[in-house]
Amino acid sequence: MSARLSIRVEHDGILDAVAVEEPLEIRVDGEALAVTMRTPGHDEELALGFLHGEGLIGPAPRAVGLPADLAQNTVEVAGPLDRPPGTRRFYTSSSCGVCGKGALEEVAVHAAPLPAGPVVARELLAGLPDRLRQPGFERTGGLHATGLFSAEGELLSVREDVGRHNAMDKVVGRALLDGGLPLHNRVLCVSGRLSFELVQKATVAGAPILVGVGAPTSLAVSLARDRGLTLGGFARAGRVNVYAGAERVG
Amino acid sequence: MSARLSIRVEHDGILDAVAVEEPLEIRVDGEALAVTMRTPGHDEELALGFLHGEGLIGPAPRAVGLPADLAQNTVEVAGPLDRPPGTRRFYTSSSCGVCGKGALEEVAVHAAPLPAGPVVARELLAGLPDRLRQPGFERTGGLHATGLFSAEGELLSVREDVGRHNAMDKVVGRALLDGGLPLHNRVLCVSGRLSFELVQKATVAGAPILVGVGAPTSLAVSLARDRGLTLGGFARAGRVNVYAGAERVG
Repeated sequence: MSARLSIRVEHDGILDAVAVEEPLEIRVDGEALAVTMRTPGHDEELALGFLHGEGLIGPAPRAVGLPADLAQNTVEVAGPLDRPPGTRRFYTSSSCGVCGKGALEEVAVHAAPLPAGPVVARELLAGLPDRLRQPGFERTGGLHATGLFSAEGELLSVREDVGRHNAMDKVVGRALLDGGLPLHNRVLCVSGRLSFELVQKATVAGAPILVGVGAPTSLAVSLARDRGLTLGGFARAGRVNVYAGAERVG
Repeated sequence: MSARLSIRVEHDGILDAVAVEEPLEIRVDGEALAVTMRTPGHDEELALGFLHGEGLIGPAPRAVGLPADLAQNTVEVAGPLDRPPGTRRFYTSSSCGVCGKGALEEVAVHAAPLPAGPVVARELLAGLPDRLRQPGFERTGGLHATGLFSAEGELLSVREDVGRHNAMDKVVGRALLDGGLPLHNRVLCVSGRLSFELVQKATVAGAPILVGVGAPTSLAVSLARDRGLTLGGFARAGRVNVYAGAERVG
């Protein structure tokens, strides 16, 4: 499987672009740890961002690579992990139908405190979705995006994926490879809804501000308030609702 | 936690409705099997639909119940399972950032062959999303819906949830409790995108037709063609794209 966002499939006698979804097996020191359904490309970033978001590896870059045969759909990360993967019990996400094991009190991953700043103008936050580049979505209508912005609103990186969580993992993984974690003084912007899991990933990555085009959930708001994250939802048409951390909105 | 789709939270000095997201631990014979992030309500349906979709239980109704203290966020299902949960290796979904273990060749759940019919008019399929009742979405903008329809387009049941997969699990679980599985001669309609996982759930439940408002992924189309499922995407404004199983579209 080569890295591409979309392929053309037939429907109703015509060829049309659809978003590519393929499984990816994430291996650590040769052992399979997880399989995720994702859009191929930037798989090293996805693996590192995922492992960091789960609290399994720290922010320092580490070796990661793909097999010569990309059709194997695997990615290999050098160990060791900071802790055994079983010590955080896994759970299914609201966005999926996937099984895990867990206890309710263990769903949250530890995150270091967020920085006090930056303070960003409301108009700038509201306009970030317009600055996301989403060529894959424009072709397929089937891709989510996450963008990493400076506090001044400059787009630093953007990733698209069929999975909204994968898109954020890839952005975080890119930052990890660049030595850019934690994401202090950065703003994350997502193209869709704001779930508990996305708030968790943002806080673990150290980003003080998360903005989304879509609606937040109750648990996303609760976790954002608990962690001191600035959470903006329904960022569109020049407006944004600020559900938590309003002190960073100037 | 009482069963409700939305609660009011403060943002920008006003109170506004957001979709409720809470974890639910699914237990079988007292043992924790999975935790899912879901919108409270219809938890028995969610548990049964989830277990059926994973191939862990058959279509026959079985005992399921909630604790007296709903705040425990648990649901208890009577065993035994048809097979140990470990034999299908779990994997993360494209819509989530959750860990599982698995091998690529084991992501698919076994499903019985789908029936040849029914044949449904294209205009009817295209209009199903307009027949979905989504009061929670109208309040919050943050809920997905799945509807179960007769082949004549009558809405038989509908569920809303922050997780698109949960909404389908609840509809399937309701049918299981009513002795209505497999869903032959039925049509499933979802309010969002069409992933591999949703196609898989539909085929395991025996539904021959699945229609969505949003875009399909490449793997959703591939699985639908492999299983003989009729798959319609972008069902809106009186139109629908038919990606697979066009023989059921009249």
